[in-house]
Amino acid sequence: MKWWGWGHEEVSFDDSNKPHLWPYLSRVLAIDNDTPRTQPVSFEQVQLPAVRRNEAFLAALGRCLNPDQIADDKRSRLIHAAGKSFRDLWRLRNGLVSAAPDCVVYPQGEEDVVAIVRAAVEHQVVLIPFGGGTNIAGCLEPQDSSGRMVVSLDMGRMHRVLSVDRHSLTARIQTGVYGPHLEEQLGAHGVTLGHFPDSFVHSTLGGWLATRSAGMQSDQYGKIEDMVLSLRMVTPQGTLVTRTVPKCSNGIDVRHLCVGSEGILGVLTEAVMQVHPQPAYKDYYGWLFRDFESGAAAIHECVRRGCLPVITRLNDPGKTALSFAFKTRKTPMKEALGRAVKWYLGSVRGIDFGRCCLMIVACEGDHATFHRVRQESAEVFRKHGGVYLGAEPGRSFQRAKFDFPHLRDYVMDRNIMADVSETATTWSNLMPMYTDVRRAIEEAITDTGSSPWVGCHISHNYHSGASLYFTFGARQCKGRELEQYLHVKKAAEDAFLRNGGTLSHHHAVGSEHVPWITDELSPTGVAAVRALKQGLDPGGIMNPGKILPSDNPLEKWGLPASGARSFNPGRK
Amino acid sequence: MKWWGWGHEEVSFDDSNKPHLWPYLSRVLAIDNDTPRTQPVSFEQVQLPAVRRNEAFLAALGRCLNPDQIADDKRSRLIHAAGKSFRDLWRLRNGLVSAAPDCVVYPQGEEDVVAIVRAAVEHQVVLIPFGGGTNIAGCLEPQDSSGRMVVSLDMGRMHRVLSVDRHSLTARIQTGVYGPHLEEQLGAHGVTLGHFPDSFVHSTLGGWLATRSAGMQSDQYGKIEDMVLSLRMVTPQGTLVTRTVPKCSNGIDVRHLCVGSEGILGVLTEAVMQVHPQPAYKDYYGWLFRDFESGAAAIHECVRRGCLPVITRLNDPGKTALSFAFKTRKTPMKEALGRAVKWYLGSVRGIDFGRCCLMIVACEGDHATFHRVRQESAEVFRKHGGVYLGAEPGRSFQRAKFDFPHLRDYVMDRNIMADVSETATTWSNLMPMYTDVRRAIEEAITDTGSSPWVGCHISHNYHSGASLYFTFGARQCKGRELEQYLHVKKAAEDAFLRNGGTLSHHHAVGSEHVPWITDELSPTGVAAVRALKQGLDPGGIMNPGKILPSDNPLEKWGLPASGARSFNPGRK
Repeated sequence: MKWWGWGHEEVSFDDSNKPHLWPYLSRVLAIDNDTPRTQPVSFEQVQLPAVRRNEAFLAALGRCLNPDQIADDKRSRLIHAAGKSFRDLWRLRNGLVSAAPDCVVYPQGEEDVVAIVRAAVEHQVVLIPFGGGTNIAGCLEPQDSSGRMVVSLDMGRMHRVLSVDRHSLTARIQTGVYGPHLEEQLGAHGVTLGHFPDSFVHSTLGGWLATRSAGMQSDQYGKIEDMVLSLRMVTPQGTLVTRTVPKCSNGIDVRHLCVGSEGILGVLTEAVMQVHPQPAYKDYYGWLFRDFESGAAAIHECVRRGCLPVITRLNDPGKTALSFAFKTRKTPMKEALGRAVKWYLGSVRGIDFGRCCLMIVACEGDHATFHRVRQESAEVFRKHGGVYLGAEPGRSFQRAKFDFPHLRDYVMDRNIMADVSETATTWSNLMPMYTDVRRAIEEAITDTGSSPWVGCHISHNYHSGASLYFTFGARQCKGRELEQYLHVKKAAEDAFLRNGGTLSHHHAVGSEHVPWITDELSPTGVAAVRALKQGLDPGGIMNPGKILPSDNPLEKWGLPASGARSFNPGRK
Repeated sequence: MKWWGWGHEEVSFDDSNKPHLWPYLSRVLAIDNDTPRTQPVSFEQVQLPAVRRNEAFLAALGRCLNPDQIADDKRSRLIHAAGKSFRDLWRLRNGLVSAAPDCVVYPQGEEDVVAIVRAAVEHQVVLIPFGGGTNIAGCLEPQDSSGRMVVSLDMGRMHRVLSVDRHSLTARIQTGVYGPHLEEQLGAHGVTLGHFPDSFVHSTLGGWLATRSAGMQSDQYGKIEDMVLSLRMVTPQGTLVTRTVPKCSNGIDVRHLCVGSEGILGVLTEAVMQVHPQPAYKDYYGWLFRDFESGAAAIHECVRRGCLPVITRLNDPGKTALSFAFKTRKTPMKEALGRAVKWYLGSVRGIDFGRCCLMIVACEGDHATFHRVRQESAEVFRKHGGVYLGAEPGRSFQRAKFDFPHLRDYVMDRNIMADVSETATTWSNLMPMYTDVRRAIEEAITDTGSSPWVGCHISHNYHSGASLYFTFGARQCKGRELEQYLHVKKAAEDAFLRNGGTLSHHHAVGSEHVPWITDELSPTGVAAVRALKQGLDPGGIMNPGKILPSDNPLEKWGLPASGARSFNPGRK
């Protein structure tokens, strides 16, 4: 894994066959082509804080783990020091690593986790559970202020599907398994979990559960918290175990205390998940809508009529323009064909290419369901003015669906600040919120001296509402990059809460969203979480500094306690 | 409301047009027809404990409530003293009321609830939130052992639907509203909540939420916890408020700390619920299956194929025989027709009337969904040997669907101990569990000297499993009625947990299920609930003695601390 960016060392984003991409980005962000690229500092240049050794703890570990289950080399510590938010990567690329775990341990079974947690309790050592390290909300950053030794608990060796019940369609799974390996093991039984977040290749079941993740097929399979029947979580107060039943009425649902706990209560070791037969039919394709409103209305009608495809990813005009900029080099014949299609769409169908919205659609299932949903949803899309674009946009999406996060390294090389913020709200709030949030992000970026780029897509839909996923980019404000990021992030989050949204639909709280948690949960809701933390982790060893706010939550950002110097203090 | 039985004073179960019912029951339970009936003691004979008055608290109430919002008359106290389990009703009918609230308060808005909770915190008074009083798990019984004044907080005056968002299909509702009044208010907007538990007429939204209730159409609309977008709960530590969004990732889901909290953390005052357009089409009808296994397999296949009707209530042979005993008197013509149908089913279709199982089915929805589900489910039912019985059984069910609880008063008049226990498990466990639980209940009843009657139905179905709802009856063991009930209840609950089930699918923990809560949640799960209780209600004023176990959980049953004298101590 790259210590400074997304994915494996040998894989990176390649624009050599995308002649429109950099011209598009440099134009919208007004970036001079002569601006020198920036690269991460070399591995050797990175200075990590000295290792704190709690010898009694290490001795206890030595008694229960093999030597190859413990690492404190620089690379291991660095890889486990942060997630993949802009703030994480900008600091890593600049060699600014003020906190890193003092060692990394690799449990091979629940008994190892129990031993590690016991030793940590006894010797007052901080533990940070680590799945794939892809979190972008600051969930992984060591935050302990009391100077204790900090240990990253990498779950990657607990990667087995322990059993599959094909009759009940459930699977008992260790939480350290990565997406592809999980699907490979389930596939041997002819089933799938159906959970495909953008981070799929590099993230784990335990990470998904700890952060209430959503995959790109959530409309069919649900969010991760909808799929879990039971789980096991090792806490400082013992191992919490729930029963494998579809539903129950056993007082407060303690399963829901574990899901979303982001490592602050304990370590998830196993879960029984519902699984599904692998679909016999599957197809990806594209539709084009006149504008964002009509596309959203079409999705909403599909929800109402019970004919929602497994994917309906509707891009707004900004995101649509970016998608078109990804087009690859074509043969002269195909170029001509493309021009003809564009003429037809513009002149015959009246599409305005500044406002139109691309929707990627996927249908899957058995023969009857696949064809019914495909046909009924197409009727709804046509009713709302949608134009069928055929299989090509779907194929492009399918090919590259897990590659999008690599783009951030590409743009950071090119001096761009880019990240995402996402939320969910009711259908009635959706379009007013979209307009206000986009305006707020654009204004905030403009405050920082850059032209703004903002895109948005809708990809998770529910009976009563949907999510909005914003991507934003700006020319980096040299010397004030983190302040700039906070200024923009704050504009987005403030706008979410002002408009009846949630601080995050599926990216967790971590430390980056802590400034908004009290507004989100109400002070009494925060008190409830604090009570749980106090009850299950009285020594405060489990991933401290996450979810729960301190007196000045903005200090989580590593900025002055007075908050970031605002770029435009006059504007609310 | 009856203080000693189900529903309104003027409504009771009438068997005058059901010539087969009592002959059936008296035969299977071997009850001599000459056994004198028993009646509840008169209202005048009931002795309530003297009222404890906390004068400072009452003075505080007097400053914030009107006089008509406070009652301490005997009838009000008695009605709020218990729920409707066999144990509750047997004690009430015998005038054995060892605990009752000292007064009843009727808040008219959330500000009243806040004032009452504040005064209770300040003056150390116990509060028990009260919805409709239909709980059968001992949720409502005053359990405070420290001699504090106990106040029942009757939410019945907070009964308004505050707003309906027809675009998002959500409704903001006060929690004290009863089922029929709720549907009447929603119906004015053309929508329905779709939640119809057996207790519908007499229970409230707040009660449903506090106990994780399931309605008879849960296969379409979900359990109550699946329908709630947001809620407000007044706790001793302030008012917990969540945001009205379809899904989120905001750390631990505090909504799920409130749902199912059974009054031990605070008082639910409002919720935003998802609602649905009223269905244009609806139909009830009956199917007959050769045996329980084939009926259950048919339901499971409907779940898999996505064609599950809104109701598939499959009765086992015991419950089917009881259903047939409910037949009303017929004209000679119809009697003859009935005999012909029976001959056809037995001789032509090979139905064994000792093993066959009646399934009540309902379909509803818009034109397309209604017809698709009706037709596809019928194909599945036929494939599994089901025989269509037409509309009559469905109509009978529809007419009487909320009347079943009245039957318990009828059988208690006739010296029968009767109650229900229900659970849920995975599809793989379902039939083995059914067989083992039925055997366990039958043996336990036999231990107590009675012939056993046990029936079961399946009525809540999920991707990975289903619920089993057992009804049982025995000749009362005179002088040891509560011990007898505990002996049978214990056999059922032990068998649920032994077979991978849950202690309850939708009836809550209360005090009657407390003996099984530690097995259900694991000790660490119980510690988590205890931590929440300690954090939000440090003074322990909210409905003490519920959910959380004491050292000897069987003492909740009001039996000797050594446990009930077992009827058959030799058998495990």
